[in-house]
Amino acid sequence: MSSPILMRAARREDVAAMVRMLADDPLGAERERHTDPPQLGYLEAFDKIAADARNLLVVAEVEGEVVGCLQITFIPGLSHQGAELALIEGVRVDSTRRSGGIGAVMIAWAMDEAQARGCRQIELMSHVSRADAARFYERLGFERSHVGMKRAL
Amino acid sequence: MSSPILMRAARREDVAAMVRMLADDPLGAERERHTDPPQLGYLEAFDKIAADARNLLVVAEVEGEVVGCLQITFIPGLSHQGAELALIEGVRVDSTRRSGGIGAVMIAWAMDEAQARGCRQIELMSHVSRADAARFYERLGFERSHVGMKRAL
Repeated sequence: MSSPILMRAARREDVAAMVRMLADDPLGAERERHTDPPQLGYLEAFDKIAADARNLLVVAEVEGEVVGCLQITFIPGLSHQGAELALIEGVRVDSTRRSGGIGAVMIAWAMDEAQARGCRQIELMSHVSRADAARFYERLGFERSHVGMKRAL
Repeated sequence: MSSPILMRAARREDVAAMVRMLADDPLGAERERHTDPPQLGYLEAFDKIAADARNLLVVAEVEGEVVGCLQITFIPGLSHQGAELALIEGVRVDSTRRSGGIGAVMIAWAMDEAQARGCRQIELMSHVSRADAARFYERLGFERSHVGMKRAL
């Protein structure tokens, strides 16, 4: 029987584990710097997220170990008759724990949280190089309805 | 010679004009309700946006008339070594004023604003049915790097 997956708010001492997961893929390896203790920029970003009621950074924990993370941003907007929109960013599952259902638990948790808060829609962007990820989200009811576009500044 | 395009923070009395633009396309017509004065839900959403320092709702004005709108959300996050991310949502240009360069001025303004705030990246989602919109953003340097996925709640 598999161990339960606990979702909880991320703590400052989880930052190193989260940065390790963010850095652990071809895209992240280029842009992140994983050290333990983490670089100051990551800790300052954590503090900003933790202080903002419209941003939730959460981790998935299995047997006391952080095995996944994601962030939800609740965006007030005029569209959809003024309903808040939920945006999911920074979804990562420890590379040694993939295909164990952790990601599905995390996204289901995010959808419940967004619904409980009155959001009518939840959205995310998945890099075109991650074909498995887009299929994973489709199984959870997400539609490939948009082109996700980014630009460096 | 064309009239100057002024970008300014949206005011409560602009809500009716913004909702009219949001409702004025095949996707918006289904989900929005344009009335003047606007429905309470839109005004309440405006107040929430105006009270949040991480959300900017702006309009483009030509000769005293509101001809476009967009919203920028500044999202604190761990990715990119803790840099804030700028998300653009709800971009609309009055249907009688299209192809006049208003959209390009609006997006250039949003990019400048995001850069001035220290964001390293700006992103948006464009509906797959709006092929012209994606090409427009490509001309402004955005890449079709992601699949944009949404799910109703």
